[in-house]
Order: sequence, then structure tokens, then C-alpha cells
Amino acid sequence: MNAPANLPPLPTLADVEDAAKQLRGVALPTPLCESPLLNEILGCRLLVKAEPLQLTGSFKFRGAYNRLSRLDAEQRQRGVVAFSSGNHAQGVAYAAKLCGTPAVIVMPSDAPQIKVANTRAYGAEVVLYDRWTESREAIAVKYQQERGMILVPPFDDPHIICGQGSVGLEVDAQLAERGLKPDIITAGSSGGGLISGIALVMATRHPNCQVFAGEPADFDDITRSLASGSKQKVAADAPPSFCDALMAPTPGDITFAVMRRLLKGGITATDAEVEVAMATAFHYLKLVIEPGGAAALAALLHRRELIRGKTVVAVASGGNVDAALFSAVLARTPPLAA
Amino acid sequence: MNAPANLPPLPTLADVEDAAKQLRGVALPTPLCESPLLNEILGCRLLVKAEPLQLTGSFKFRGAYNRLSRLDAEQRQRGVVAFSSGNHAQGVAYAAKLCGTPAVIVMPSDAPQIKVANTRAYGAEVVLYDRWTESREAIAVKYQQERGMILVPPFDDPHIICGQGSVGLEVDAQLAERGLKPDIITAGSSGGGLISGIALVMATRHPNCQVFAGEPADFDDITRSLASGSKQKVAADAPPSFCDALMAPTPGDITFAVMRRLLKGGITATDAEVEVAMATAFHYLKLVIEPGGAAALAALLHRRELIRGKTVVAVASGGNVDAALFSAVLARTPPLAA
Repeated sequence: MNAPANLPPLPTLADVEDAAKQLRGVALPTPLCESPLLNEILGCRLLVKAEPLQLTGSFKFRGAYNRLSRLDAEQRQRGVVAFSSGNHAQGVAYAAKLCGTPAVIVMPSDAPQIKVANTRAYGAEVVLYDRWTESREAIAVKYQQERGMILVPPFDDPHIICGQGSVGLEVDAQLAERGLKPDIITAGSSGGGLISGIALVMATRHPNCQVFAGEPADFDDITRSLASGSKQKVAADAPPSFCDALMAPTPGDITFAVMRRLLKGGITATDAEVEVAMATAFHYLKLVIEPGGAAALAALLHRRELIRGKTVVAVASGGNVDAALFSAVLARTPPLAA
Repeated sequence: MNAPANLPPLPTLADVEDAAKQLRGVALPTPLCESPLLNEILGCRLLVKAEPLQLTGSFKFRGAYNRLSRLDAEQRQRGVVAFSSGNHAQGVAYAAKLCGTPAVIVMPSDAPQIKVANTRAYGAEVVLYDRWTESREAIAVKYQQERGMILVPPFDDPHIICGQGSVGLEVDAQLAERGLKPDIITAGSSGGGLISGIALVMATRHPNCQVFAGEPADFDDITRSLASGSKQKVAADAPPSFCDALMAPTPGDITFAVMRRLLKGGITATDAEVEVAMATAFHYLKLVIEPGGAAALAALLHRRELIRGKTVVAVASGGNVDAALFSAVLARTPPLAA
């Protein structure tokens, strides 16, 4: 399938490889974790790509740095503006610091405290807005117009998609070291940047691997979009998801074009299933995963028939969760057990 | 300095490299984590080697597998016995499973529940004993005599030391990728196997790097042994440490011979400092670290004058902590802040 006429050419594996080169020595290579006990319980080989350990606590730094590091001197002087519930915010803020460019980040006032505080700590100017009465796009446009700042979209941009796709290249290399080939891979999906980038890698390196977008059951716009063949939206009045990182209301144009071509579909997880995934990751993998970061893992853990006997990869996309919420989850939710 | 006459020749860097070869494709390469925010707060480059992500949740698997994989067929049939408060137990239990040999593990009845449960889950036979009234050595000897089992010591064995030393080789390679040279490295130390193995690497690769044993303030036998030049003991009636993984009462003969030659000394942390390290690792690094695993990091975090302007490495040695304790620490202890 070709891209719709109004889209730039879709990114390719070569673009992802170029992004990985840009990120070398800057982003951290994150481990592909596993637990023999968990593998035994599930009857499969489960590998968890640990992006909570990435700089800024999520994969978002990869795409942000890949985008910002390509600004020219004049653009760097003007600076960048982004809107984000938190992980893209931190990724852009730290990438901007490394690239020596000012950053304004528009964040919802109900974003997790850790995400707002960290974004400020990386040196960005944070502008809070009310999710229910204000338009983050309108605020961002104001900074574009008044200060000439460059908008850094959270997912619908080739450099962003390819930066996130570097996760897929690392997974591929790490599987090869263990002599494994993936049957299934999934990653938490909001606008679809991460899973699109990964799909670009898998389509060439492992064409038989099934690639799924992992979503919260209450924000399943990608799952429905892929099933119906056209972009679907989350209801405008949907309450905020427990998975605060996965609340984009609809896929991007570029990401949807990639996903429609390369994904098997979407899989979802309820909040309760996400909590089990967080507790399971704590207990068996010693990883701190935030709700949105655990959605893809949760969707796999609860599809025993899908994963049995397979080599399955879940990308844990972020770990920026407040201590109080994390502790509450551990207190009320036991990990998976034999 | 040569080894005392009654000791086998001290292990060398070549032995550590051989252990790393034995572990290739079996142990997980663990990441060298860092946080730009934490670096800024501390005014240094802090790198945390994340051994909680190792198979079985601690570095102990490395040494155990390096030892057990060298048993001959007849020895494998007889099986192995080990005593451990928990992390060596799990490491030996899983290594025994991979090597197809039976394992009996003698564990204190007050060991963290997660450690006892996991050791059983790896298929080992667990024998509980009372720390205050029974001798774990005597129980282990019984299995050696009655079943002809081979004792796998927790630290004072060249194969164990060199398996743990593979951590040092990984750190060296990971630093080189980032163009860094270590000024200081420390690791949680109980009997000294891990830090001895690391010291064997650093002595050759980075002779100017200062190597410290990291200990709980209430179990500082290595620190005092190194300061005095002879093996010192923790008081026989010392209460159990918050750092349950670091309760060996005195260094080993081989480890002390290595440490006396290659270490700068020992550094200690109080329980309160260990809690700050655990909360800081949660907040900035997204790692679950158990108390003993955080002691070395804690000792560094509270020595600002020692680390300022330096490249410092703390090995987080394990992550096997019960959820209730971890949550309690997060609830009562804030992370380091600017």
C-alpha cells in the first residue's frame, strides 16, 4: 500500500537505521529482560524490553532526540514547542537541553506530578492547561506564531517514528544473541509512533512476526481503527485513562498508514489487567513500569492461548509513575502466580 | 602480595574472562543505568549497574552458574548443597536446574518470603533453619556426607568470584561505549565475592580506579578488615541487618586476599541511607533494588565530597524485596532532590 497522496513518503527500515545511528552514544541501549519463573508460569518465552530505563524514563527520548538533533542552527535558536501528558514532554525537554535549544511544553494540569516536575527539571518552560476547557493545540500554535517555535509532534512525524523504531533494532539484535526469533511483538500505543517504528523493523527482519498495538481497553482507538480500516476516535467525553501515557484520541495519519500496512491488529487490557502486569514486572523482573507502559505487557499476559509456546516480546514503554500510585498497586494487586 | 600458603592461587583477569565466556548466552547482560537529573543533583556522572535485572534477580546467578557448569557428570548426579539468606540460594537453584543437577539449599527461616518461594520455584529442595539456634554449616555438611553433595560456597571460591567478576567486564565495555573511565566503583559486599571479581578487572583495565566494598554500617566487617589488615568479624550477637543479603560475618580467605591487595577500602551506609538509595533508584532509575543491593549506592550518594566531579559506578547487586517492604520504604522515604 502506498501512503495517501497528502502524506510524505512513509519511513523505511533505512530511516530507522539512520535514527539508531543518530542515537548511538546518546540514548541508552535498554535490556531485554526475562524471568525463568514467569516463562514457566506462562508456558512461553516472554521478553520485556525495558524502556523505563531509557533516559527520561521512557522511549520518548529516542524520537525527540532524533527529531531535535536535526534542527539547523537557526531553528535551534527559535526553539521547540510540544504538547504531551508527560513522557514526550520529558523526552523533548531533555533532548532540547542536549541540543541547546529552548523548549516550551504544554501539559495537562492533571498529569502525574513526577512528569511535570521532571520536565521542568530538564530546563523546559511548562505551560499547564485544563484538559476539559482548553485546547493544547491552540496553546502550542500560539508559541509557534509568537516565538517562531517549531512544533515537535508526539508521534506523527517520520523522525519521531524512526527514533522510536530504534527500539525494534535493539530487540532484533538482542533476540539474535539468544538465538531467538520473535513470533509476536507488542508495545504500548497512544498515537502509534513506537509500534509503527518497530513494525518497520520487523516487517523486513522478521516478516512472520505478528505486530500488535497494545492499548488500554478504554482508549482502544487504534484497535478499532485497524479492525475497521479507517481512523476511529475515542469518545470526546471519555474519562481519563488509568494509562495516562496512552490517551491520544486517534492514531496519526502517518502512523495509521504504517500500522494499517504492517500490523496484525490491536490488543487491549483493562485497568485491572494493567495492575497485574505492573505487579508482575515488579515481582519477577524488578522493573518499575507505569500504567501506560504496562498496557502491552498486560494484554499479552492475559492472552495465554495467543502466547503459549511462542517467543513473545512486550515493550514496556515507560516508568514515570508516582510512588504513591505504584505502592497502591502493589498493595492491592498480587503478581501472576503459578 | 602473594596468596597465603594455604590458599589456591588467586584468580586472575584471565579467569574472569573465562567465566564471562562460560556465561555468554546464559546470563543476561545488564544495563549500566543513569539519570541526567540525578547526575545534576550530585554533580557527578553516576552509573548504576542493574543486577536486579539479572536472572534470579541478583548477580549471584553469575557465580553459581560458572561454578555448577564446570561439574563433571558424576558430580552432577550427586548434586549440590548451598547455604544462603536468599540470593545465592536462587542463583544456585536456577543454575542447578539449567545444569540438570539436584540442589539442596539451607536458608534461614526469617529470610524474605520472596527469596524462599523463588528458590523452591526453581526446583531446589529448601531446608529452613533457625539463625539463632542452628548451624547452617552443620546442616550443609550433613548433606555433603549423607548424599555426597558438593558444597557451593557463597563467595570464597575462584569460580564464584570470577563469575561475579563478569559484572566488571560488562561495566568496562559499557563505560568504553560512552567514552568514560571510572574514577570509583563500589558494590554491595557480604563475603566480598562480587567486589573481588570486579577488582580483578579494574586492577588491569583501570588501575587508577578506586575500588570500594559497600557495606551496611551494622555489618562492616570488610571495611574494618581492610582498615586493620586482618580479618575482622561482626559481633556474634549483632541483630539481623536491614540489608538481609549482606550478613556474612567475615570476609572469605580468598576474597580477603584479593581485596587486601586491590581495594581502596570499604564504605558503609546506614539503614536510613539505604532507604534513600532505594527511593532514589525507584524515582530516577525505575529500578527495584533490595536493601542489600542498594547499600553500595547509598554509601556513594551520601559521600558528596568523594564523588563530586567524578565518574562513579555503583553496582546494584539485587532486587529481591517483598512488595510490602518496598512500598513501606517508598511511603516513608523521599528520593534525593535538588
